[in-house]
Formats: sequence, C-alpha cells, structure tokens
Amino acid sequence: MELHTEIAELAAQLGAILTNNGLTITTAESCTGGGISYALTDTPGSSAYIERCFVTYSNEAKSELLGVAQKTLREYGAVSEQTVYEMVQGVAAAAQADVAIAVSGIAGPGGGSQEKPVGTVWFGFYLQGKVLCERSHFSGGRADVREQAIDFSLRKIISLLNT
Amino acid sequence: MELHTEIAELAAQLGAILTNNGLTITTAESCTGGGISYALTDTPGSSAYIERCFVTYSNEAKSELLGVAQKTLREYGAVSEQTVYEMVQGVAAAAQADVAIAVSGIAGPGGGSQEKPVGTVWFGFYLQGKVLCERSHFSGGRADVREQAIDFSLRKIISLLNT
Repeated sequence: MELHTEIAELAAQLGAILTNNGLTITTAESCTGGGISYALTDTPGSSAYIERCFVTYSNEAKSELLGVAQKTLREYGAVSEQTVYEMVQGVAAAAQADVAIAVSGIAGPGGGSQEKPVGTVWFGFYLQGKVLCERSHFSGGRADVREQAIDFSLRKIISLLNT
Repeated sequence: MELHTEIAELAAQLGAILTNNGLTITTAESCTGGGISYALTDTPGSSAYIERCFVTYSNEAKSELLGVAQKTLREYGAVSEQTVYEMVQGVAAAAQADVAIAVSGIAGPGGGSQEKPVGTVWFGFYLQGKVLCERSHFSGGRADVREQAIDFSLRKIISLLNT
C-alpha cells in the first residue's frame, strides 16, 4: 500500500502548488475508490488544502452526495463525460473547494462493453469555476487501470494549475 | 500505489465474508485518507457491498458529513474514542451500511503531543448496531503509520465478523 515514488512526488508537487496559491482541493472518486485522496493525504501538512473527499461508487451515491441528475446517469451512464462533469461540479460545491477531481471508469475485469471497454476512464477537472472533462483508456488489469488513473489525474491537474 | 499483497488479500477475504452474509460496508477515514476504501475497492465485484465512503479530514467534515458533535471534538479532540464512536455511527447511518470502519489518528510527522504521540490511532467498528472502539499505536513514519492503520482495521473487522 506504499505509494509509488512517482505518485507520492506528484502529490507533493500538487500540494506545493495548492499551498503557494492558497487553494483547496477535493475529490469524487468512483473506480479509483479513494486512491487519489489517499495519495493527496500522503503529503505531510495536506490538511491545509484538503478537508473532505467522497468515494461515490454507486449511482445513488453520485446523485445523493454530488447532485448528479438521475437522468444523466440513465441516459449517458456512470462512465460518461456528462456524469463526470456533474460529479466534479457537485463535489467542488459540496466541499466548497477551489480545485476538484472526479473520476468514473471501468477498472474491470467486468463491466466493459464494446462502446466502453475495460480501461475506459472519464475525468472531470474543476478549477475555480471552470470545468474540463477528458477521457482516457488504460491497459492492464484492475490494479493497473486504477493506478494509471490516479497518476493521470494528478499530472493533469498539476498541468492545468501551471497553465 | 500497488496494494501490498497482504492488504489486497485481507480486502478480498473481507469482501468474501460480506458477500456471503449479504452485508454492506462503508468507511469514514481521517488519517488514512481513503486508503481503506481504496483497499476495499481493489477487489473485483466490490460494488456489491460498498457504495459510498467518506474522507473526513477536518473537524467540519466530521461534523457536517457524519454528525459528530462539535462539543465532542472540542472536549475530546478529533483523535479520541468519543470522536471515532460518533464517526462510525454517523457513517453507518449516512451510508445505510451494515458494517462500518472509522479511523482518526496522528500520522505525523506533526500533530503529536505527550498525551497523543505521533502514531496514535483510534478506530471505530460498527456491526449492525453494535459499536466497538479501539486505540492502537503504530511506529515508523507517516506512510508506515497509515499503512499499519489500514492493515489493522481490515484484520479487526474480519475478526469481529468471524466471531
């Protein structure tokens, strides 16, 4: 359960950016199941910029805790741009955070389809009112997909914050 | 960010017990920051028994999301039997789960005191209406303390479920 050095370093780097800019962060995780918040809180002093995070594994959790519309989940599915868009806006509001990450994907081994194969992950990134959604596809087994999704989300939010 | 084989095995073992007994689980994590939910969702098919989890890092999050009384936090502190008692009852209710784990501790390197040194961790365990709280002390650095807390909580809840 040790963090890979790279992920720990990314979390520390992100923490420094947040601290230097006086920003707070939150997460809403589905397939990564808390791995991003676990990485973020690896950094000593992270309580300065992170104070609550959500693991919303079921559709009900996404609706009840983050305010994702049931219509969105029904029409587009949990692993979709529309869902992560609503997830990341919802979690930023719920935590009153400046920055937020939302993740919903198919880590496998089950749950894949032709349209959305195992390894498909949608990300939502929130930066002080602006939202960006991005899809990626990761290879490997369940653990590999989850780890790559954590790594991807940290790199992306760092890159967005540095822009 | 790979799970240690032991923790992955404990999570799978716990998952099998929950599945066989038709039970659901949830978590409220402070110092472990999502590591327990990350471990639990490592097991394929875990959506059958886990659907939402909370990382409540700040006192406000513990109050607002889990219903921990501000008086409790003020009088006993976040790392206390009283707080994890209220955390675990609160999260079981919030997730309507049969089984719940709550963790609040001092992972370090800062935040320790003579009374509550770094490595002090309080755990709350909820099993269908019954609550058990337990304190432990782990040695090592921040990552070691967090990992041992995850390991401890999984072993303990398995043992309680097997009793």
